[in-house]
Amino acid sequence: MIKIMKYAKTSPEEILARGTSKIDVSKTVSEIINEVRNKGDEALFSYCEKFDGAKIESLEVSAEEIEEAIKTVEPEFLEILKEAAENIRSFHVRQVRNSFIINEKDGVITGQKITPIEKVGLYVPGGTAAYPSTVLMNGIPAKIAGCEKICITTPPLKNGKINPAILAAAKVVGIDRIFKVGGAQAIASLAYGTETIPKVDKIVGPGNAFVAEAKRQVFGQVSIDMIAGPSEILVIADKNSDSISVAADLLSQAEHDKKASAVLITDDETLAEKVAIEIEKQLKTLPRREIAEKSIEDNGKIIVTTNLSQAIEIANSLAPEHLELCVDNPFDLLDKIKNAGSIFMGRYCPEALGDYFAGPNHTLPTSGTARFSSPLSVDDFVKKSQYTYYTDKALKKISKKVAFFAEKEGLSAHARSVESRFRDEKSLLKDDKNPLFKNKEYTNPEEHLGEMR
Amino acid sequence: MIKIMKYAKTSPEEILARGTSKIDVSKTVSEIINEVRNKGDEALFSYCEKFDGAKIESLEVSAEEIEEAIKTVEPEFLEILKEAAENIRSFHVRQVRNSFIINEKDGVITGQKITPIEKVGLYVPGGTAAYPSTVLMNGIPAKIAGCEKICITTPPLKNGKINPAILAAAKVVGIDRIFKVGGAQAIASLAYGTETIPKVDKIVGPGNAFVAEAKRQVFGQVSIDMIAGPSEILVIADKNSDSISVAADLLSQAEHDKKASAVLITDDETLAEKVAIEIEKQLKTLPRREIAEKSIEDNGKIIVTTNLSQAIEIANSLAPEHLELCVDNPFDLLDKIKNAGSIFMGRYCPEALGDYFAGPNHTLPTSGTARFSSPLSVDDFVKKSQYTYYTDKALKKISKKVAFFAEKEGLSAHARSVESRFRDEKSLLKDDKNPLFKNKEYTNPEEHLGEMR
Repeated sequence: MIKIMKYAKTSPEEILARGTSKIDVSKTVSEIINEVRNKGDEALFSYCEKFDGAKIESLEVSAEEIEEAIKTVEPEFLEILKEAAENIRSFHVRQVRNSFIINEKDGVITGQKITPIEKVGLYVPGGTAAYPSTVLMNGIPAKIAGCEKICITTPPLKNGKINPAILAAAKVVGIDRIFKVGGAQAIASLAYGTETIPKVDKIVGPGNAFVAEAKRQVFGQVSIDMIAGPSEILVIADKNSDSISVAADLLSQAEHDKKASAVLITDDETLAEKVAIEIEKQLKTLPRREIAEKSIEDNGKIIVTTNLSQAIEIANSLAPEHLELCVDNPFDLLDKIKNAGSIFMGRYCPEALGDYFAGPNHTLPTSGTARFSSPLSVDDFVKKSQYTYYTDKALKKISKKVAFFAEKEGLSAHARSVESRFRDEKSLLKDDKNPLFKNKEYTNPEEHLGEMR
Repeated sequence: MIKIMKYAKTSPEEILARGTSKIDVSKTVSEIINEVRNKGDEALFSYCEKFDGAKIESLEVSAEEIEEAIKTVEPEFLEILKEAAENIRSFHVRQVRNSFIINEKDGVITGQKITPIEKVGLYVPGGTAAYPSTVLMNGIPAKIAGCEKICITTPPLKNGKINPAILAAAKVVGIDRIFKVGGAQAIASLAYGTETIPKVDKIVGPGNAFVAEAKRQVFGQVSIDMIAGPSEILVIADKNSDSISVAADLLSQAEHDKKASAVLITDDETLAEKVAIEIEKQLKTLPRREIAEKSIEDNGKIIVTTNLSQAIEIANSLAPEHLELCVDNPFDLLDKIKNAGSIFMGRYCPEALGDYFAGPNHTLPTSGTARFSSPLSVDDFVKKSQYTYYTDKALKKISKKVAFFAEKEGLSAHARSVESRFRDEKSLLKDDKNPLFKNKEYTNPEEHLGEMR
C-alpha cells in the first residue's frame, strides 16, 4: 500500500527522498571499452554473441533488411508513428535558433553563429521491449538541428535481427545507418570508432546501468545527453480529481522500473485515501505488476497538504521529471512552477500522452536536476561559436583600455598583442614600422554570412 | 624555438596533439569536500588560514569593505570596467530566448517556458593575480538570465582582504554577496551550503586543479559550467600577415600557462620562419617569459600548408578554443568554420580584445570540445520546461493511438492511464462512471502565461 503522509508532520528529507539506482559496473564497463578500442569490430561481434546471444554476419543493418522488416509492421502502427513524428517535429522546430550579428558601432562587428554537431550516435535499448519512441524523440531534434551524420546502435534479437518497430521509426525519422550493437560496447564503438562504426561527436539515448556507466566513462571524449536517474512523476490533484485516473497515472510511472517514483500531492485527504485503494485495485490486473508494486512500495507516496500553494512549493523543491497538474485551471499555476521537466496540464493530460505523441520531448531531467537542466531539445544538437571583427580605427580607439585591463590582470603579452598593431607609437616595438594592413569596412556584414542561420 | 612542420609531411596525430593538464588531486579534494560538509563554516575558517595564510573574522565581505576597497581602484580602471561590462551586456542580451506556446490544433496546447536558474555561485580565482574579467564574463550573463541569487567566492589575500579590482567588477555587475573562500573548499561550500555560504544550483568560473577536481566531484549534486583544459589559440595567417603581431598573439596565449598551446597555420613558409624568430625576440622581454617559453617549447607549433583551405580543414579538426583569421576577407571564411569557440576576424582582432572587452564571452570550450560545446552564455543560466494541455475532446480523438503505441512498447499501465479517462467505453474499467471533469477550452492561452518570457 502506498504511504500517505501529512505535509505538516513530515520532514523535508522524507518528502524529498527519491529512489536512486546505484550498481557499480565501472570495472566491467572499462574492460569492455578497452576491448573495443583495441580490437574494434572483432570485439563487437564477440560481445554480440556473448551478451545478445546472436551470431550476426554484418554489424550494419542492410537496406533490404530494413525494407523486409517494415513490411511486417502493422500499417496502423506505421500511421501512428508518422503522426507522432509530425507532432514531435512541429514542437521541436520551434526550438530552432538563429545566428545573430551585431554591427552597432563603427567598425565593430560581433556575432554568434549556430552550427549543427556533425556526427551523432543514438543508442536505442533492446532487450525485453523495443522502444521506437526513443528513435523519434532523439532522432527528430537531431534532424531538425541539421546534424549531417546520424546513426543508431541497438542490440539485435537472438535471431540476429532488429525489432521491426525500431526500424520503422528510423525510417520515419530518416535515419538509415543502423548498427547491431548494444550495451557498453555500443557506446565504446561510437566514442572511439571501429572499422564499421563511425566515431561520433555526441551520444544520446537511454540505456541500462552498463550503457549509463559507459556514457559516463566516454564523456569528455564525446559529448553525451545526460545520465538519467530513475523515472519520476509528481501528480498535484485537487479535491475534484478522479481517483481512478490519478491512480492510473501514478502506476504508468511505477511500471517503468522498481526504482521509479510516483508521488501524489493533494489538499484533499479523501482523494488521498481513494487513490491509495484504487492503486491496489489496478495493480491486480497490471501485466507489469511486480515492477509497479515494488516501485509503489519503495518510492511511492501521497502527501496531504492544507492547500495547493504548499503543493507547488514541494514541486519546486522536488524539481520532478514529470509533473501533472490535475486541477481545473492549470494555466493559473504554470507561472509558479519553476522547476519541472515536462508539465502535463489539466485532467485530460496523462503523462503517457507526452511519452509518445503530444510533441514535447520525453528525455527529461531526473533526480531533481530540473533545477538546472532541460528536456532534450534541438539545442542539444547544435553548438554556438562567437565571432568578433574590428577595423584598425575601431581597435585603435580602445587599444589602451584593453592593454590597461590586461596589465591589471598581470598579463603583459595580452597587452602587447594589442599594442603590436600600433607600434609606431609604442616604445617597446618602435623600431618596426606599422605594416599598414589592408583593412576592410564591412558596410553590410550580413551578406557575407552565407548559409548561416 | 617553436617547431615548424609541413602539413603534407606530418601525421594527423602530430597536428592534433595538444597539451593536457593531469594532476591527480582527487583524494585531497574529496577530503576537503567531506570536511566542509561535516564542519561547515568552521572548516572554511581553518582552510583559509592553512591555504591562504589569512586569519579572517567573517566569511562574507561587508558593504563597508566593498566601498573602502573601491576607493582604492584607479578611476580610469573603473571606467574601463564599465565600458567592458556594457559591451558584454549588449552582446549577451541578444542571447535571451523567449518562451513559446503552440495552439494550432483544436483543444491542444504545447509550449516551452524558460526559467532562470535560481541560485548561482561564481568562483573567481585569486592567488598571484586577480581576474576581474572573470566576474564580468560570468556575472553578466547570469544577471541577464534573471538568476535571483548570485554570489561570488574568491580566496582572500594574506591580509584577509579581497583584491579591490574584483570587488569593483562585482559592483559593476551588481553582485553584492561575496565570500572569502577559495579552492576546493569554496566549491564544496557552494554545492552543499554551510551556515554562511548558501547552497546553489549551479557553479561557474575557472580555477586551479583543486577547483576543477572539486567541480568534477560535486557535479550532479549541482550543475557546473565546464571543466576547462589548458587554454589554446590557433592563428590562421596568410602571406600578407605581420609577423610581429602574429607572434605577439601566439605569446598572449602562451603566457597563460605552461600547458597552454599556441599554434599557427600559414600557407607561407617565409611568414612561418619570421614568426618563429619574432617569438624568440619578444620572449626576451616578456615578464611571464618562463611560462610562455615552456608553453611554446612543449605545445607551440607552426604548420605550413599549401593553401588556406587546408588550414580551415585543420581548424575544424582541432576545434580550437580561440581561432584568429589573419586574412583580408575573414567573413568569406566564416561559413566554413564549423568548430571553434571564439573566432577573431581580420588583422586587427587580437584574442586579448575578446578576453576583456569586445563583448563575446571568454569562457570557451577547450581540448577540441568546440565540436559539441559552446561558449558560456545566457543559456547556461536558464533551463527549459515543456508543457502540454489537451481538452477531453482532443485527448479522446487520439487516445487509442497513444494506447496502441504504449502497448507496442509493452507498457500497459501507460495505455490504461489514457483509457482511464474514457472508461464508459473501455471494458476494463467499465463499472465506473466517467467522472465528466470540468474542462476548459483555452481560446487565448497566451494571456495566462503571466510573466513568462
